[in-house]
Amino acid sequence: MVISDTHILGKDTPSIVYALRGLAYVEIEVTGPSQDLHSGIYGGAVHNPLNALCAMLAQLQDESGHILVPGFYAKVRPLSDEERAELAKIPFDRQAWLEEAGVASDWGEPEYTLTERVSARPTLDINGIWGGYTQPGAKTVLPSRAAAKVSMRLVPDQKPAEVIELLKQHLLDIAPPTVSLTVRDLNSGEGAIVRRDSDAMQAAFRAYADSFGREPVFVREGGSIPVVATFQQVLGIETILMGFGLPDDRLHAPNEKFHLPNFYRGIETVVRFLEYLGR
Amino acid sequence: MVISDTHILGKDTPSIVYALRGLAYVEIEVTGPSQDLHSGIYGGAVHNPLNALCAMLAQLQDESGHILVPGFYAKVRPLSDEERAELAKIPFDRQAWLEEAGVASDWGEPEYTLTERVSARPTLDINGIWGGYTQPGAKTVLPSRAAAKVSMRLVPDQKPAEVIELLKQHLLDIAPPTVSLTVRDLNSGEGAIVRRDSDAMQAAFRAYADSFGREPVFVREGGSIPVVATFQQVLGIETILMGFGLPDDRLHAPNEKFHLPNFYRGIETVVRFLEYLGR
Repeated sequence: MVISDTHILGKDTPSIVYALRGLAYVEIEVTGPSQDLHSGIYGGAVHNPLNALCAMLAQLQDESGHILVPGFYAKVRPLSDEERAELAKIPFDRQAWLEEAGVASDWGEPEYTLTERVSARPTLDINGIWGGYTQPGAKTVLPSRAAAKVSMRLVPDQKPAEVIELLKQHLLDIAPPTVSLTVRDLNSGEGAIVRRDSDAMQAAFRAYADSFGREPVFVREGGSIPVVATFQQVLGIETILMGFGLPDDRLHAPNEKFHLPNFYRGIETVVRFLEYLGR
Repeated sequence: MVISDTHILGKDTPSIVYALRGLAYVEIEVTGPSQDLHSGIYGGAVHNPLNALCAMLAQLQDESGHILVPGFYAKVRPLSDEERAELAKIPFDRQAWLEEAGVASDWGEPEYTLTERVSARPTLDINGIWGGYTQPGAKTVLPSRAAAKVSMRLVPDQKPAEVIELLKQHLLDIAPPTVSLTVRDLNSGEGAIVRRDSDAMQAAFRAYADSFGREPVFVREGGSIPVVATFQQVLGIETILMGFGLPDDRLHAPNEKFHLPNFYRGIETVVRFLEYLGR
């Protein structure tokens, strides 16, 4: 199987993804009063679902990015010294990364390098939140409900279904008795590691090298493509992840782009891959 | 001055508001990366403004409703034993209140009664929050910004401008260095206490009594009508708050209503008020 849904390290720095993180994605809804109330009349005496939701979300992660859901790290396979040494060899321009991300400084678990944090460590992000009055100006509403979307990137050997159960249990444990809670599993998938010693992978390696004039490096990808694990488990086949995006393509964001020279180099790489694989 | 913007205790239980809470209303915006990012690529290494905002909002109030902004309670005039005894005499049907609010139980500062909490104690409510992806389904975005509207009801002798400065300082103190913060003052106003011994107030008292067949009780209102303080300070005049709403009118909420018999009793009350005041 070949999937083209990953990016390379830079426009002249080809890379091949051999590991994908898993994903556990939930929607959390907190319900309070049966209808919206006026905060001047009921505020201070009716638990506001927005206050309750924010208090609960704040108990999922500490300020350095460590996830506080009990048991969350129990099944995380520790990074070996060998793998950490290998990840440290990946070319990385910190200043260019900060500019691509549009931030003045990075953030996250201080005991791991930036490369490790974005590819080999699990994460927790609030991807969306809503509730109450969100138009310009002031309205003193105490809303009936509030909701958030929360996703977690998972690493070997975390299982999405188990992690979601841990999260649900933690949320139930910390939910105040004055509101009610629902947690919906929206879109979860397992991570995967693909073999690097197959003939197909060797063909891909040589195709990138000959098309970009530089040997590709093997990297772990922070994102998730759950079907790769499904292909392994159900069909018993490996996947070659031959992507040609760039880190600053603004994936899933406004003004998403694709670097045109990569389009032509991608065509060349795929032609060579088929030729080398045929041999 | 006469303002008709308050409610009475029940359809057959008239009341006159003599104290209003002040209001401090702000919009808080947390900005992280310069554009939305993919959480699979940057999650764990770029501080997510939604995670940061929720963590900050959770540090404004404890689970029992006590406000954690340093200095917030410094100027709160303590409730006297006499005033607490007076507030305790206001007819209050707890079960009816819970049904009106649409909640199974009340919430808030355990050392104050429910009547005190909704009228004589300061409060803090998140009135709205937004950021990231909020449509159906899953999208793994790490948004560029997140925002919330937060309002505080104030009691004598809290000043809105001072309270907003305390809140801003607290937010700056707890804001992580990896995001930036703006706090905008949206709509603030002082609370007020109006004289109960004026001729006009006596005329209003008798007008309610004769129209509803029952003497009104004097109550403090949890909401805010900032112009009452402005009339006192600029024009030097008192305001009679002659309202006819009911607590379950769903103010500021969907399906807001007005109880029609109160419309006709309101007309009678106003006619009598003008007559008694003229005498």
